[in-house]
Amino acid sequence: MGISDLVPEIGAVRGFQTAGVASGLKKNNQLDFALISSDRPCVTAGVFTENRVKAAPVILDMARLEHHADKIRAVVMNSGGANACTGQQGIQNAEATARQVAEKLNCDENAVLVLSTGVIGQQLDMEKVAQGIAQSAAGLGDYWKDTAQSIMTTDTRSKMASVTVSTNDGEYTIAGIAKGSGMIAPNMATMLAVIVTDASIHQVQIDRSLGTAVNHSFNRIVVDGDMSTNDTVFLLANGASGVRLKTSDHQATFQKALNAVCQKLARDIVLDGEGATKFITINVHGAANDADARKIANTIATSALVKTAFYGNDANWGRIIAAAGRAGVSLDADRLALWISASEEVTDLSGDALLMVRNGTPTPYSEARATEIISNESVFVLLTCGMGDGWATVWTCDLSHEYVSINADYRT
Amino acid sequence: MGISDLVPEIGAVRGFQTAGVASGLKKNNQLDFALISSDRPCVTAGVFTENRVKAAPVILDMARLEHHADKIRAVVMNSGGANACTGQQGIQNAEATARQVAEKLNCDENAVLVLSTGVIGQQLDMEKVAQGIAQSAAGLGDYWKDTAQSIMTTDTRSKMASVTVSTNDGEYTIAGIAKGSGMIAPNMATMLAVIVTDASIHQVQIDRSLGTAVNHSFNRIVVDGDMSTNDTVFLLANGASGVRLKTSDHQATFQKALNAVCQKLARDIVLDGEGATKFITINVHGAANDADARKIANTIATSALVKTAFYGNDANWGRIIAAAGRAGVSLDADRLALWISASEEVTDLSGDALLMVRNGTPTPYSEARATEIISNESVFVLLTCGMGDGWATVWTCDLSHEYVSINADYRT
Repeated sequence: MGISDLVPEIGAVRGFQTAGVASGLKKNNQLDFALISSDRPCVTAGVFTENRVKAAPVILDMARLEHHADKIRAVVMNSGGANACTGQQGIQNAEATARQVAEKLNCDENAVLVLSTGVIGQQLDMEKVAQGIAQSAAGLGDYWKDTAQSIMTTDTRSKMASVTVSTNDGEYTIAGIAKGSGMIAPNMATMLAVIVTDASIHQVQIDRSLGTAVNHSFNRIVVDGDMSTNDTVFLLANGASGVRLKTSDHQATFQKALNAVCQKLARDIVLDGEGATKFITINVHGAANDADARKIANTIATSALVKTAFYGNDANWGRIIAAAGRAGVSLDADRLALWISASEEVTDLSGDALLMVRNGTPTPYSEARATEIISNESVFVLLTCGMGDGWATVWTCDLSHEYVSINADYRT
Repeated sequence: MGISDLVPEIGAVRGFQTAGVASGLKKNNQLDFALISSDRPCVTAGVFTENRVKAAPVILDMARLEHHADKIRAVVMNSGGANACTGQQGIQNAEATARQVAEKLNCDENAVLVLSTGVIGQQLDMEKVAQGIAQSAAGLGDYWKDTAQSIMTTDTRSKMASVTVSTNDGEYTIAGIAKGSGMIAPNMATMLAVIVTDASIHQVQIDRSLGTAVNHSFNRIVVDGDMSTNDTVFLLANGASGVRLKTSDHQATFQKALNAVCQKLARDIVLDGEGATKFITINVHGAANDADARKIANTIATSALVKTAFYGNDANWGRIIAAAGRAGVSLDADRLALWISASEEVTDLSGDALLMVRNGTPTPYSEARATEIISNESVFVLLTCGMGDGWATVWTCDLSHEYVSINADYRT
């Protein structure tokens, strides 16, 4: 068995067809509507926002995956409106959207999932939705790029990834698209992702695989600490390759390949973070346990003071330590150590990493060297706590003038 | 009994003397060092940062108030260095500072409290500290303005407040100074405040009074959600007015006056929030309990998306609702209602308030009217949850380009 190199585009995935079109929901004839269709039922897993305020499509999809997860035939998606805080009318519109797609594809309406993204609180213009359905259903093919573009909001580029896995029984593909750049919180994000595979997988296994992959990818990213009403990740498996994941080896390889696709999409979201100029990896080691490490890493990654310091190329470790200190977990200031590096090998053993803090106080490091490191587009931080063996990694970006501009002017 | 109008300056407070001088800790001969001294022992209360990483002066002061809270004679303060993450040397420097002040004032070193603010992780230049002590001890008088200026960091203006309370036994004064503008978290802030009074108060009562006042003032303010290593509020009572708080009426009046002083200083901190262009009051009513209401209000006030929308004069209620939804408390989207107003009377009964959301969905409000309201320098938000009778109010500000500039360039 072997996994191909990951590529940032998608060719064909057996049994799936897709289209991205301009329905008029967004202005200026932008792509804003997409359909992914499978020629046979897919076994499907979903992971959804933990926000208490859930958009209508999220409510619909959660219910559908309860009862029809092994019969899914299509995902219909729009930007230009989140269909959140839209009440009963919003639910009816999501249902009507699915029903119309089902008519076009000649399948049961319960086999259609719905994703929406955009401004909260506006009812979708259902005439434009009908336009989008008609056009996309009529134009299905291998149009993954258009599909990825159709779900962009403040994204500056579309996000795609695919890998091929070769086995003794043949090859299968895992391919995914995602959107997201603002409102990216520790748990999920204003993000949508749809991953498809032509491998054949059981329900229990696809649920577990997606959960694991999301924990190692989309749940690790922080742009601004907000969490949206619409966040959703789907994994659809239609089995069209004929390859079944029979052994634990098969399953491990599938997990590895799926993780790679999800991590690529998650990293793309951070790289495309609103106004981001830097990709920052926060590693926390030696916390009392993994949950504590995660809280510390998330608090650092969410701190406006830390993020603005990175933007200013200022290796202000004091803000990182202060953020760790308010994470609400057990911590001993005198045991903290902090390294920064421009390469991933940020450990105490690496000659490349700069040790800035030891035993909670600064080392006599070179400020010039620190500034040199932090001025890179990719920066790695390692904080060790000396409390236990808990660890976590999160990915984040800096906070720039451009972030403020984008979000102050979003609706104007 | 009567409480005078609050004034944003401080005249004389009996028994107290103060000075603010330029020690050289900051560049360009800026005021950076201050001393507040009482001619007799003060009964003293302190409230400290909850950050696990505590600055040396905080560690020192917490220990001193354990054993010597009724014998305090002075508070020595510096900007230009936080004395945080400075290890054993930092503790020794804080102790030496107190000792030198005690020698000048001819009192016990345990009667001196220390406050520091500025960049984390640098040892204080003790020669400059000695300069500051000599100068300030030699120049004591009613120099409250200089004192308030000496503790400024990114503050653009000094913060002072005082009131006089008249009783049958005579008058007493409550006066306070504060600093703080960035890193202002739900619980405390990068803030220092020293409040003095010439009333005579028992230890139990002063501790309770300060706790109550802080909960209704400094613990209500959010600038960027960070919490510093140095946050401290002191209340010193020297009894020089001869007025004792004998009855519960006296005590209630004292509490009211103290609350007013603390609220004025807290609001000044928000008004001077880094880059702030707006003062925003977030009221949450009808949460399941007060703690839930507080979490919801804090999550809204800390949301970068909410804060940038305010900066952009964009009445984007969807971001407020989405922030409420991720506060991690019980919430039913369908019961939410949201008003905004430019006047404090933001209730469903007020003609001035604009109802934007009812039953979780938008009303047909006028966008022009919403933009008009949110374009004010002071905006009031009321979110009602329909879950119970929990309520909370927090004060915050918007997130501007200027915030990013200030914090990206802080150390340069």
